[in-house]
Amino acid sequence: MLDSSNPVESSIPSIKSSLIEPDGGALVDLVVPENERGAKALEAESMSKVRLTKIDVEWVHVISEGWASPLRGFMRENEYLQSLHFNSLRMADGTVVNMSLPIVLAIDDKTKESIGSSKNVGLVAPDGDLIGILRSIEIYKHKKEERIARTWGTTAPGLPYVEECITSAGNWLIGGDLEEFDNRQADAVFAFQLRNPVHNGHALLMNDTRRRLLEMGYKNPILLLHPLGGFTKADDVPLDVRMEQHSKVLEDGVLDPKTTIVSIFPSPMHYAGPTEVQWHAKARINAGANFYIVGRDPAGMGHPTEKRDLYDPDHGKKVLSMAPGLEKLNILPFRVAAYDTVAKKMAFFDPSRSQDFLFISGTKMRTYARTGENPPDGFMCPGGWKVLVQYYESLQIEEETEKATVLST
Amino acid sequence: MLDSSNPVESSIPSIKSSLIEPDGGALVDLVVPENERGAKALEAESMSKVRLTKIDVEWVHVISEGWASPLRGFMRENEYLQSLHFNSLRMADGTVVNMSLPIVLAIDDKTKESIGSSKNVGLVAPDGDLIGILRSIEIYKHKKEERIARTWGTTAPGLPYVEECITSAGNWLIGGDLEEFDNRQADAVFAFQLRNPVHNGHALLMNDTRRRLLEMGYKNPILLLHPLGGFTKADDVPLDVRMEQHSKVLEDGVLDPKTTIVSIFPSPMHYAGPTEVQWHAKARINAGANFYIVGRDPAGMGHPTEKRDLYDPDHGKKVLSMAPGLEKLNILPFRVAAYDTVAKKMAFFDPSRSQDFLFISGTKMRTYARTGENPPDGFMCPGGWKVLVQYYESLQIEEETEKATVLST
Repeated sequence: MLDSSNPVESSIPSIKSSLIEPDGGALVDLVVPENERGAKALEAESMSKVRLTKIDVEWVHVISEGWASPLRGFMRENEYLQSLHFNSLRMADGTVVNMSLPIVLAIDDKTKESIGSSKNVGLVAPDGDLIGILRSIEIYKHKKEERIARTWGTTAPGLPYVEECITSAGNWLIGGDLEEFDNRQADAVFAFQLRNPVHNGHALLMNDTRRRLLEMGYKNPILLLHPLGGFTKADDVPLDVRMEQHSKVLEDGVLDPKTTIVSIFPSPMHYAGPTEVQWHAKARINAGANFYIVGRDPAGMGHPTEKRDLYDPDHGKKVLSMAPGLEKLNILPFRVAAYDTVAKKMAFFDPSRSQDFLFISGTKMRTYARTGENPPDGFMCPGGWKVLVQYYESLQIEEETEKATVLST
Repeated sequence: MLDSSNPVESSIPSIKSSLIEPDGGALVDLVVPENERGAKALEAESMSKVRLTKIDVEWVHVISEGWASPLRGFMRENEYLQSLHFNSLRMADGTVVNMSLPIVLAIDDKTKESIGSSKNVGLVAPDGDLIGILRSIEIYKHKKEERIARTWGTTAPGLPYVEECITSAGNWLIGGDLEEFDNRQADAVFAFQLRNPVHNGHALLMNDTRRRLLEMGYKNPILLLHPLGGFTKADDVPLDVRMEQHSKVLEDGVLDPKTTIVSIFPSPMHYAGPTEVQWHAKARINAGANFYIVGRDPAGMGHPTEKRDLYDPDHGKKVLSMAPGLEKLNILPFRVAAYDTVAKKMAFFDPSRSQDFLFISGTKMRTYARTGENPPDGFMCPGGWKVLVQYYESLQIEEETEKATVLST
């Protein structure tokens, strides 16, 4: 899964040590060195402040860890327009890098007014901590309807990211160069993105990919299990539960801990289908990956107001294969895994005996866990399954406690 | 306004004689030679048929005249997706050409069924004439909501092109290589696009541009007056009236007939702002232009349901200056012309004495013509103005006749 010129040790390196600028330039470093932090923080104290939301902070991490390189901060208008219209940015040297999602910071009228003609602003986390500086700022209009239409291909209500952080956001965007004070010590390079618990079908796909890469002549392909750590919609399994589940999958030996690195991708989830899958792939290129497995309907969801998929399930793969700036990415064909009721395990789907296969969707899996029903043997390792069952039990207890509270008042 | 390596005679050449492939390749020729037309028409008779709308026929002309080169027909899905997401197409040799509007042909379920597994289809104009063949066809889904959102940046009702030819169109798109039977003898290369009557402010801008190009060392810059000939919204002045008005402007000497060519751009109007202005520029590059004048809010309109401009008036110019595949285009800064009430003529706006200037919008101009009121002296040449007044008088007579008919029944 890795660029052979950029081998990954089986230890857990800092992600920054494996960052590659798309143009082959220097490593990204937007994080202020430890000995300069006091002075910077002091400087920031005197600046106009921008209060960040939780998701804004996720983007601060995304930018300062280099996932969005060569972007060095929140987008100014020229970058925003290129991202919106071309899904890519043209560099000064004429090269094109893929950039399909606008990475922007919204502010309201009052904040804009308080900034006035300042050149730099301090960034304040929801807990009140000063976490960074945005320099050489540019403020421009936040045309929300257009941003939504061009990113999601619809303006229907019910898009999770839109409702969470665009609808109620301010009418202005502020761009500039970011300096983050803290280094979060992100911990790996990676290649398999997921926002769901790992079942044995995923594992089959990952292990089979390793086998194929060995066959292709790679000496030490590392499996990079890469859960998305930013915003997800309410009915997705939360990150901490997923991380615990992933640990069990490694403990139970479904994935080999010697050749697997688990890392968190700090980006918030847009559910923007073909537009977002480009971002997911681009961020992995920045981290040194040059193989990318893409499945059916990546970053997709149901249409928020109609009974259909929001995106054509094949468009993600197609758009990815043609995207400007992603020419060097090798897209690995995705093989469909399903539960083989004869062999009693997850296996690659064999159309010649389709009646033997059972497709267990994410929704179906969650229903099993919620109702306490066991999935078929061999669907998921017992340790991992237990984590899920406990999570849904805790949800039910919470719900019942809430009901009881309502009844007793 | 022209590529100096591609001089235009002051005679009226066939547009095809000046077509340049963006990659410097061979001239486009999608029109069947005269001596082969009988055989082709006979062949098409035996094929499944696709019935075209008036606007589909406009696109047949656009494609076969080479404006959309290197596109050789209606888009297949790969081209459609690239256009929708990247506003550009990647060629086999890795070069990128700008292609911001999807150029597609919609068919309904019944037509799709009648085509079955045919490889080629005959194209039938609204009047029943067989006008061409689409070869090696591909049929794919017409996801209208996504197409609209990604092209216009809104899904609000009231977008003229959408209402005219997307809403009621079929649920499938059919792509393939086009062969058109008839050559329409399109008549020029060009560079100044407009869909309105020419007033003296336009003329000032065009004549001033010629002067500047002479200063830049060009020996024979040709003014290319280039009215849009395809679909326009109901309250725009129709093409035939505009053509008559343009003739008067040349007769009256406001523009010099010796250095001016009038040509029709057959494309239908999308009113898609920053997305469409790329198409307008790209088509001109195909015809040999390498200078492009872009004004405020190109291809813009009011938001269909809200009281504001649909696009940021500056985004057209900005997006154009950064668009993939348009790197070689020189964008000429647009100078604002207005009526100088002191000099009693159209002049470049001078902010130091702004109180002397009167801005006469297209809407204002139409109101003058409709009410029979004369605009200030020097706004438009008398011959051209008369054409407009007569057009609006004829509309009024029509309206009154309709009213009378209603009253008498």
